[in-house]
Amino acid sequence: MAESAKKPYQEMSRDELADEIAALKAEYKKYQAMELQLDMSRGKPCREQLDLSMGLMDALNSTADLSCEDGTDCRNYGVLGGIQEAKVLIGDMMENNPDNILIYGNSSLNVMYDQVSRSMTHGVMGSTPWCKLDKVKWLCPVPGYDRHFGITEYFGIEMIPVPMSPTGPDMDMVEKLVAEDEAIKGIWCVPKYSNPQGYSYSDETVRRFARLKPAAKDFRIYWDNAYGIHHLYDDRQDYLIEILAECKRAGNPDLVYKFASTSKITFPGSGIAALATSANNLEDIKNQLKHQTIGHDKVNQLRHVRFFKDIHGMVEHMRKHAAIIRPKFELVENTFEENLGGLGIGSWTCPNGGYFISFDALEGCAAAIVDRAKKAGVKLTPAGATWPYHKDPHDSNIRIAPTYPPLEDLRTAAQLFTVCVRLVSAEKLYSEMK
Amino acid sequence: MAESAKKPYQEMSRDELADEIAALKAEYKKYQAMELQLDMSRGKPCREQLDLSMGLMDALNSTADLSCEDGTDCRNYGVLGGIQEAKVLIGDMMENNPDNILIYGNSSLNVMYDQVSRSMTHGVMGSTPWCKLDKVKWLCPVPGYDRHFGITEYFGIEMIPVPMSPTGPDMDMVEKLVAEDEAIKGIWCVPKYSNPQGYSYSDETVRRFARLKPAAKDFRIYWDNAYGIHHLYDDRQDYLIEILAECKRAGNPDLVYKFASTSKITFPGSGIAALATSANNLEDIKNQLKHQTIGHDKVNQLRHVRFFKDIHGMVEHMRKHAAIIRPKFELVENTFEENLGGLGIGSWTCPNGGYFISFDALEGCAAAIVDRAKKAGVKLTPAGATWPYHKDPHDSNIRIAPTYPPLEDLRTAAQLFTVCVRLVSAEKLYSEMK
Repeated sequence: MAESAKKPYQEMSRDELADEIAALKAEYKKYQAMELQLDMSRGKPCREQLDLSMGLMDALNSTADLSCEDGTDCRNYGVLGGIQEAKVLIGDMMENNPDNILIYGNSSLNVMYDQVSRSMTHGVMGSTPWCKLDKVKWLCPVPGYDRHFGITEYFGIEMIPVPMSPTGPDMDMVEKLVAEDEAIKGIWCVPKYSNPQGYSYSDETVRRFARLKPAAKDFRIYWDNAYGIHHLYDDRQDYLIEILAECKRAGNPDLVYKFASTSKITFPGSGIAALATSANNLEDIKNQLKHQTIGHDKVNQLRHVRFFKDIHGMVEHMRKHAAIIRPKFELVENTFEENLGGLGIGSWTCPNGGYFISFDALEGCAAAIVDRAKKAGVKLTPAGATWPYHKDPHDSNIRIAPTYPPLEDLRTAAQLFTVCVRLVSAEKLYSEMK
Repeated sequence: MAESAKKPYQEMSRDELADEIAALKAEYKKYQAMELQLDMSRGKPCREQLDLSMGLMDALNSTADLSCEDGTDCRNYGVLGGIQEAKVLIGDMMENNPDNILIYGNSSLNVMYDQVSRSMTHGVMGSTPWCKLDKVKWLCPVPGYDRHFGITEYFGIEMIPVPMSPTGPDMDMVEKLVAEDEAIKGIWCVPKYSNPQGYSYSDETVRRFARLKPAAKDFRIYWDNAYGIHHLYDDRQDYLIEILAECKRAGNPDLVYKFASTSKITFPGSGIAALATSANNLEDIKNQLKHQTIGHDKVNQLRHVRFFKDIHGMVEHMRKHAAIIRPKFELVENTFEENLGGLGIGSWTCPNGGYFISFDALEGCAAAIVDRAKKAGVKLTPAGATWPYHKDPHDSNIRIAPTYPPLEDLRTAAQLFTVCVRLVSAEKLYSEMK
């Protein structure tokens, strides 16, 4: 099959496609017989990655002094915005001044949700609460992160897809829409190693974001820098212009909420999340936050600071993550290249960081591919998940999450995936020839 | 002064009061000269109490297996409702079935806030979102917990005070109001060792709560059982009927949200919070929660379970807390009795548990007493804080928080407090004689 596989499917005759389908069906059955149970659906760290942070559990013990440098006893109530040394560490991680940082609990998703929720009930800096408006709209670069879209869908916000390219969202469209429509209150961005493509916004894109002229005064860029230091390579690292500084330079200091967390640095669900934004936004947020909580988990903040010591410790830690997951990305990319290269039935990204590879199948094939893989025991992110309302109008995008399965499982899963892509694509082309 | 002090102030002549005022002013000056800096304003555990939980820091270390009994790796994403063994432990603490428990993050206040916030934007079990209603009202037993009132005030909910008695809120009034007014959507309750009185609701009160017939289908009792196991004595412990079971028996299974946390058991701000409620409410809540977070801090949940092992471990732990703070409560109560007993210028509670003593001064004196204390270096909870909108119409209630200061400081603070009470009361009575 290897030989024929190099001929683009679109150039095959009906008989050649029939032969290909028969061969692929036989191969697919072999995988089914293996009774696989593999999961490539979510961007989860693998066991070996989690093991890297076990030292976190020793960072504090019963003889430790759980006081901050300023004397605050982290074991007691208080300190709404987070302890100073955590602000410094996370500030270095986010490339922001500690004064612009709010340290939260364990989940940046929760922070983003709360931002939207507060805007619904209380508006932004004194604007009309969004729940009092007839219509609230949101820009959603696509394909994008399903949990972002889940928040805006939950709040009944109308989501408008904006096409992504390797340099970021279509900025002509973004600029035009936000300038024209006061109902547009936000945009979801994963600016570095984007979910799912692994793209990083170009300098021009960031600069145009910082210079947006939204009709709505309460429009905010939701800048989810989830993978800011999540490089796969030492020598191939994307660089992103720091958005807060750029907004300030552009005279738009309050335009952006920037999010990050240590979820994929230490333990997902047991890390610390943070928000960086302007002094005005921080004041607005704290006026609400003080009613919601007395403070977040300072002991866990201190634990992270004592474990990493400083940003250099964190960067070295991330190199260990990269050493574990880089081979997984390369395995998937190589398998795709070997089995799909030149066939004209799919394209995929080869990111320098982040947690995902984005795969684009022939139009109308994604759901069938995911379904085929599922029936052979390989769970993928549902087709459509990368689009608002779970509806990919092209039915072509599939998010590949290579980090969680062990390398050997991943090899099998990636192989099976390519079999599914070829089978579904061949069947589609064959049926269209009828 | 000791002799004259036993004569009720109301029975004193103008001259006697003048003498008393002069003597008290001299005494007050002595305290001012001490340049005190004492804080009795918040219900914070003291250092010795926090030391009790240092073992929590050893409950997990870098060689520990951070897996649950069911195999879940607590270090990774997932498990929205909390790990099973935490549900069992907190279920035992809350006297509820683990199936009725949702484990949250570090703050029960945050859980309550989120309940109100979700009701504002999405209603309760399909009811009209409260933000779409002209008016939302709330019942507030008074005096009560300032942070409760802070949440409802923040959301623009009209708060209606309901008088408290040693058996709980005025249930005639509660029953009548909720039956008549569909705009009333909730009530704040601290049913055991209430904040600030330390009262516990009687059996009849709990039974009447469970049998409420609210006009609003989306009315919920916010049952903040913050001090469920926070007894001061081994032999004098209040007992509270379990509200979920009672609501179920009464045919009102969905009427209540019950809250608790380990904030005053282990470390405030680094503990775990929980909600207990019916299956229907849990489903409603989880349909929202899944958009807000992937899960709360499971490692910290596991840490608490490994530290306490079971509810017996927790109860023994609470006896150690009691041993530290019981003398503080008794010191304050004895000082009040010695210096204020028989004077007819104030009354106070002597609770069997919780974190507060409630003091009622002569009408119109609370703010002046708090101000006097402040000017001599003793910080008290601001007068009015125990009432909605910070407005105590009688200006009489003061919340005393005896746990945080060291015993010697507390002695000084309590003495000074009684001097302030006497001085302000004498001045008031003197001025009324003019």
